[in-house]
Amino acid sequence: MNLQEILRSITKPDSNAMLQAKNLLESFVKPQGSLGHLENIAIRVSGITGKPRNTLTRKAIFLFGSDHGIYSEGVCSSPQDFTRKLMRVYAETQDGGINVLARQAGADLRIYDLGVKELVPHKNIITRKFLPEGTANFLHGRAMPLTLTEEVILFGAELVHQAKLEGVSLIGTGEVGMGNTTPACACIMAGTGSRDASLVGRGAGLDDEAFARKQRVILEALALHSESLTDPVNILSCVGGLDIAAMTGVFLGGAAYHVPVIIDGVISIAGALMAYMLEPITREYMFASHESPEPAYSRAAKFMNLEAPLKLGMRLGEGTGCAIMMNIIDNALAIINGMGNFDELL
Amino acid sequence: MNLQEILRSITKPDSNAMLQAKNLLESFVKPQGSLGHLENIAIRVSGITGKPRNTLTRKAIFLFGSDHGIYSEGVCSSPQDFTRKLMRVYAETQDGGINVLARQAGADLRIYDLGVKELVPHKNIITRKFLPEGTANFLHGRAMPLTLTEEVILFGAELVHQAKLEGVSLIGTGEVGMGNTTPACACIMAGTGSRDASLVGRGAGLDDEAFARKQRVILEALALHSESLTDPVNILSCVGGLDIAAMTGVFLGGAAYHVPVIIDGVISIAGALMAYMLEPITREYMFASHESPEPAYSRAAKFMNLEAPLKLGMRLGEGTGCAIMMNIIDNALAIINGMGNFDELL
Repeated sequence: MNLQEILRSITKPDSNAMLQAKNLLESFVKPQGSLGHLENIAIRVSGITGKPRNTLTRKAIFLFGSDHGIYSEGVCSSPQDFTRKLMRVYAETQDGGINVLARQAGADLRIYDLGVKELVPHKNIITRKFLPEGTANFLHGRAMPLTLTEEVILFGAELVHQAKLEGVSLIGTGEVGMGNTTPACACIMAGTGSRDASLVGRGAGLDDEAFARKQRVILEALALHSESLTDPVNILSCVGGLDIAAMTGVFLGGAAYHVPVIIDGVISIAGALMAYMLEPITREYMFASHESPEPAYSRAAKFMNLEAPLKLGMRLGEGTGCAIMMNIIDNALAIINGMGNFDELL
Repeated sequence: MNLQEILRSITKPDSNAMLQAKNLLESFVKPQGSLGHLENIAIRVSGITGKPRNTLTRKAIFLFGSDHGIYSEGVCSSPQDFTRKLMRVYAETQDGGINVLARQAGADLRIYDLGVKELVPHKNIITRKFLPEGTANFLHGRAMPLTLTEEVILFGAELVHQAKLEGVSLIGTGEVGMGNTTPACACIMAGTGSRDASLVGRGAGLDDEAFARKQRVILEALALHSESLTDPVNILSCVGGLDIAAMTGVFLGGAAYHVPVIIDGVISIAGALMAYMLEPITREYMFASHESPEPAYSRAAKFMNLEAPLKLGMRLGEGTGCAIMMNIIDNALAIINGMGNFDELL
């Protein structure tokens, strides 16, 4: 399918299944609504699958690695080759944060090289280098060509399609790429029509000077591309990244193929926002997990009216928040599958 | 041990183990501190056990059932015999909210009848009726005698002692008892020196009239007992409940026997606050879980400088928030046990 076909295929969640789920929850031995978000989660999953009761046993986290040309503007405190080195940790020693938490969640970790500089093929990495050197510096032109951007989005959507065919029923979105909070923030500011520098955050930890530079770079880039920031595909092409574009596709795919997809931090929610702008119904197929301390995260979440139930102060990325959220979703589904009703009260 | 002996036995967490844990976490392949609360949890557990790495495999949730004399003032929207009926659900059909979530967390559920009206013995309930009809109406006198209050506290502490001997390494605190947000709120207001009616919440769901009545009842009770509210044992005796007193003991026991104890909602945090006032070091052995929507919860949490990482809008009680928090603690410990360090980066 091309992008337009995918967008046309997206339909609203099943309101009948959601009503059945709601009625079930109201029949249980508890004050109405007293399990809060757990109840909302169970109801929303029903809408996605079309069944009031669900178990989402097969879980996967897609981890997208890519480098970012904007790195060269000094917007990141870590060496750029950490992208490559961390990819090797995830694939080889398998003791990165996301490796540990994906195992805890019982989720497959699927690692994609979309364009990590000098990263050689590895049996545990799916190599799909759209741009072998990563994106271009978007202060000097588009981060990536428009047609390529659409290809990356379609790639992301197709991953969900294939995963669904394998029986995967819950997906998390992770990334690694030095400097990628800069394109994420730029996409969110472009998408929500803001030029407020206070939305820019310190990423993994910037000193004051680098932080001021990052704010300047984002505002300059948004000014440079202002006439082209007309729609999400153009926004991604101008100031996005391979990771964000692939995630945009994953969120679209979640909605098209009826698989719930979890948002991680600020990079992930930038992809979610782009998908939402392409088709607002995608929101109904997304779950926020933890609240990133990056201010652009909250901006995007509010724009989509999504609320993150976990306030863990996490800013690692990699999909780590998604892994933890999988536990919460499992708990929500256990409730609707396992609780009894008031009729049993003697 | 008597109460004074327990209090004297409480010592600060092991700062050396905490430093070792911190150093370990800083050596891992991630920006420093980027796993936020997960790192704090792992460090705090180290302080409690005295070891930098831990697995808290055997988990238990203590569920305290009791009735409350203040119920007769019309401060609760549910029939009072729901306390008894729910106890039978937990014990017999085992499909209450906490049954489901305790199973998810891999925790034993231990159900105690401290004073549930007309509840007959059951093989899955530990019967320890301190007051067979529950507490007295504290608008007409003390909720329970002072000496009995201390007995209940010691009972709670001894439960932790016994559990520790069995190998239990993580404890959650739950309760059931119609009307028990009223004594919880009264204890928190007495303990924090507040007479602000806006700290009173609607519990499981009160209409405006009953809500105004609940506010009035609490303020009147605090005025009636004002000269006796001099210390936590007196506060519990005057305006507390059997559940809150037992939880106070559990939190003291956690600190005395070096077992981390999780706070659930507003009733549980009232017990935590009483323990904290008896010995502030107990705070270091407690973990907040979810933020209860009851305003007194936030007051108590702030008073103890504790932060609840889960914002799930839950108001069921029973220990349900503790069960979910056990997953989060497991994740935190998996991180410190499983992540690799930068030396592995090639």
